[in-house]
Amino acid sequence: MIKERIAKLQELMKERGIDYYIVPSDDYHSSEYVHEYFKCREFLSGFTGSAGTLIVGADSAGLWTDGRYFLQAEQQLCGSGIILYRSGEKGVPTITEYLAGALCDGGVLGFDGRVLTKSFVDKLMAAIEEQKKGASDEVTLHYDEDLAGKVWEDRPALTAKPAYELDIRYSGESRADKLARVRAEFAKQEADCLILTSLDDIAWLLNIRGDDVAYNPVVRSYLLIRKEDAVLYMDRKACPPELAASLENDNVVIKDYDTIYEDVRTLPDGTVVQWDEQVVNDTMIRSLNPACHTVDRENPTILFKACKNPTEVQNMRKAHVKDGVALCKFLCWLEGAVPQGNVTELSATDKLEEFRREQEHYRGQSFDPIIGYGEHGAIIHYSATKESNAVLKPEGFVLMDTGGQYLEGTTDVTRTVALGALTAEQKKHYTAVLKGNLNLASAKFMEGTTGLNLDYLARKALWELGLDYRHGTGHGVGYFLNVHEGPNAIRLKAVTGRETKTPFMEGMITSDEPGVYFDGQYGIRLENLIVCCKDQETEYGQLMRHEYLTLVPFDLRAVDVSMLTAEECSVLNAYHKKVYDTISPMLNEDEREWLSKATAAI
Amino acid sequence: MIKERIAKLQELMKERGIDYYIVPSDDYHSSEYVHEYFKCREFLSGFTGSAGTLIVGADSAGLWTDGRYFLQAEQQLCGSGIILYRSGEKGVPTITEYLAGALCDGGVLGFDGRVLTKSFVDKLMAAIEEQKKGASDEVTLHYDEDLAGKVWEDRPALTAKPAYELDIRYSGESRADKLARVRAEFAKQEADCLILTSLDDIAWLLNIRGDDVAYNPVVRSYLLIRKEDAVLYMDRKACPPELAASLENDNVVIKDYDTIYEDVRTLPDGTVVQWDEQVVNDTMIRSLNPACHTVDRENPTILFKACKNPTEVQNMRKAHVKDGVALCKFLCWLEGAVPQGNVTELSATDKLEEFRREQEHYRGQSFDPIIGYGEHGAIIHYSATKESNAVLKPEGFVLMDTGGQYLEGTTDVTRTVALGALTAEQKKHYTAVLKGNLNLASAKFMEGTTGLNLDYLARKALWELGLDYRHGTGHGVGYFLNVHEGPNAIRLKAVTGRETKTPFMEGMITSDEPGVYFDGQYGIRLENLIVCCKDQETEYGQLMRHEYLTLVPFDLRAVDVSMLTAEECSVLNAYHKKVYDTISPMLNEDEREWLSKATAAI
Repeated sequence: MIKERIAKLQELMKERGIDYYIVPSDDYHSSEYVHEYFKCREFLSGFTGSAGTLIVGADSAGLWTDGRYFLQAEQQLCGSGIILYRSGEKGVPTITEYLAGALCDGGVLGFDGRVLTKSFVDKLMAAIEEQKKGASDEVTLHYDEDLAGKVWEDRPALTAKPAYELDIRYSGESRADKLARVRAEFAKQEADCLILTSLDDIAWLLNIRGDDVAYNPVVRSYLLIRKEDAVLYMDRKACPPELAASLENDNVVIKDYDTIYEDVRTLPDGTVVQWDEQVVNDTMIRSLNPACHTVDRENPTILFKACKNPTEVQNMRKAHVKDGVALCKFLCWLEGAVPQGNVTELSATDKLEEFRREQEHYRGQSFDPIIGYGEHGAIIHYSATKESNAVLKPEGFVLMDTGGQYLEGTTDVTRTVALGALTAEQKKHYTAVLKGNLNLASAKFMEGTTGLNLDYLARKALWELGLDYRHGTGHGVGYFLNVHEGPNAIRLKAVTGRETKTPFMEGMITSDEPGVYFDGQYGIRLENLIVCCKDQETEYGQLMRHEYLTLVPFDLRAVDVSMLTAEECSVLNAYHKKVYDTISPMLNEDEREWLSKATAAI
Repeated sequence: MIKERIAKLQELMKERGIDYYIVPSDDYHSSEYVHEYFKCREFLSGFTGSAGTLIVGADSAGLWTDGRYFLQAEQQLCGSGIILYRSGEKGVPTITEYLAGALCDGGVLGFDGRVLTKSFVDKLMAAIEEQKKGASDEVTLHYDEDLAGKVWEDRPALTAKPAYELDIRYSGESRADKLARVRAEFAKQEADCLILTSLDDIAWLLNIRGDDVAYNPVVRSYLLIRKEDAVLYMDRKACPPELAASLENDNVVIKDYDTIYEDVRTLPDGTVVQWDEQVVNDTMIRSLNPACHTVDRENPTILFKACKNPTEVQNMRKAHVKDGVALCKFLCWLEGAVPQGNVTELSATDKLEEFRREQEHYRGQSFDPIIGYGEHGAIIHYSATKESNAVLKPEGFVLMDTGGQYLEGTTDVTRTVALGALTAEQKKHYTAVLKGNLNLASAKFMEGTTGLNLDYLARKALWELGLDYRHGTGHGVGYFLNVHEGPNAIRLKAVTGRETKTPFMEGMITSDEPGVYFDGQYGIRLENLIVCCKDQETEYGQLMRHEYLTLVPFDLRAVDVSMLTAEECSVLNAYHKKVYDTISPMLNEDEREWLSKATAAI
């Protein structure tokens, strides 16, 4: 089947004289989660991982994916004739290197420019240019046709579920005020307008939410903000009249989703357009009236959105009380249910979801939940399937990384729980991870400090045991938006220049999630969300600190108390006291008793 | 006098039609310390600080310097008519902004291109271009005349003290082997040759040392390395016949210092030249035969030089034993001498130098020594003068930051010593700084960790008290070379991209020097050099750690033991035991007794 799909694409390529065609995993907005409509790479290759790019040649095809997916890709590509390129492995060319080599004598490269960013295409063309042999022919681009989509006959239609307004009691700042702040920013660059294409930035700015993509409550749209008004390009069916009226009240008019390309083509000569070329798609940029000028800047919405306002922080605390109640009820239930032998990874996931659904204003999960028992806990991006679904036995660890969306905010919490007696070594590992979580969260630091400076705190206890984890320590989290949101992050090494230079600021919300993983045995990860707050100001500067938002006990049965310093004990006890005081009033008697034990001072 | 000098320069500028002339503090090699010959800015402005740039216009002159020198510059510029521009202060234009504004309508900009880097000139020209008004005239550069030098009639001559070879028992690697490694690096870039202009890189690569510049034992020279041979451009008088013969033996020929400019002008067409445009001067780059190609890369010598080989590390340990002996003798002497009332900052500096000179292979100080008593200790770059020279009384703190050059390596050590009873607050401050020093030095970390990741360790205890220091925590140190050497550094925020991406590697030597400063009261800084070593390797990666090189006791009388954790106490006690065991055999009885008390376990 896959072979036929690839052959059909190759036929279309041949008709058009295209030598290589690129099929990435993206939508038109560089989104992390994409609608089914955009899963062309999955359709054409059979590979279902979240990250991967397919390159189809005249008589070959290759798929690039990263270490998380090597095993899965091997299995899913088996028999398809598609070659697996393991990104990051020694001797494996990158996509850019591969195409630069393949096209250094000239040729025609095809792609749908709406699913690639300009910066990707620029880098690719620069690499081809560098490898080009003296008098070889130019590379021609065929960028305005979605060939993959042409092969996909029963492609799912784009949905257009109703968008809605996020009330100011949740957003804390009116659309008009946000627009004014953004307009002031692009005016500083002497730009006449700003084009936003990232869905969370648009949702934040306009105080709107939607339901088209799993986990991320965004609205499929583009936004053109001018000095006096703005145009929101979206599916008109998805915009109820009351929302349209409210938007119009702020001079935001609705136009059809696709028409933005024509509108940028016909912007008045001399217009100065600001946008972020790391994010805006290649077709959009090619569509721009060539008599316009451009300013390439990070979207001003990024930093505005990251620094939650007092209303958002207060709401986030409320969301975490709800989430804490759901988690505590679930953990109490789990303790009773596991010994009875009928709990599986999938049934536990459903049960937890059930408890979350009982909470007011719950709007669904914030990402694909991970409940991994035993050795599954060691698979960092595990997602239980019917085939893998393990029964939870009263022994060892279960790792549970889940989150919810509430009108009051987004949660993301990982708890690793002992289902039975643990070895001294298991406790040592759990305690080392816990120390990392506590020490990172309780650090006091000077304004200007970045995630690069604090990452060490989460790893120190593990490194001292010769252990480590191969993922970042923390990511920014949106307000009832994307669970992964920049620019704040906590890692050893920055992945973007933006990360390197953005210090922690008041209101930023970040995850604190050290872990340790033993292949074939078990994994431990302990994740809380933390919010950045101001501490005292001295003549040396403004001190900052983090506060835990998450309100769920750590598992004291897994703690080797002798490994904790006095300070760590007191941080843990204070946290557990806060969890008990806040959550216990919302529990029934059994649950309250469970929580009382779970949060006892050590 | 200054007014006359400026007027004379303005006259020369007028004759040539130059509107603005730039006089920086640099030599032709981007050196940190420069020969008297290069101090044109000091001569023309009267300002003697180490950092500052003078810009002279047709009827005005301005001097830019940073926060360290505001007070000094104010005093020294008083009455000169030169306007002080306080770099980094709000509303003060940078040099680039100032010149871009001044020249946005066109004009002639003058400078001696040998004392500016290409990257500086490029940035300046880009800024002018951006501000240029529509049809305004171009800016013309007048870059090939040293006008400042023409004003300076009694300018000191460049010296040419004899250079000498550093024996392989000190360098640990032959010149031929080093050249082979460097040639392999530029061959990878498909370059035909490499041009080095940074003096410490040349000295390291050729295993030569010299005596022309204070503190840095380098040889004023340029180096052109081709595939088979190399040309060392230096003052022939400074090259004794035996050194010339040794160099020739490795196919390194000597040519006159200045002739490199002509040689790059006449390189064969098509030659691919590698150099580092952040370092190479503007004139050198303009001189290159335009039919050559260039590769702009960080000099491969930078990282080679930073990772000391086993011979160098072993020698560095020896140098630190000598330095420790000198310091311990000095500290013992100081304790006896201060109460007698005849010790001053300058006499103490001389006395310490005397003890260092007693050590074998001592070659002088490694930087301008800082001995600051009481409130002078709070001035981070204090240097005692006859006017400021304070008498050390038996009370409060004295801060002493000094270092030596030995054939076996370079030292840099800061001790702050209690000369009498301290307040509880003073002890608290001393102990917080000490905790930072100990915790940074004793951290175990995974390969890949950078100075950005570890800086926090040095600041944590201070931040918890609301205190901080406004300087980096650590800088790389050369081997019998420059006391400030990249790319390793320990700071909160990288000042170069190179710093951000260079992890600690085996053999790197870095300073560990937290501090705290109270204006008008006292300053505390505690500095040891540390060397990076491999620790255990696990399946998670190679663990690394640092070891102290410096062997001088901290002042236990200034320590509030109750503030130290058990771990910190044990690190301190182990360090003091090592100091005693290593240094005491080289001391007389009184000194040994002093050291025994000074290093007693707590």
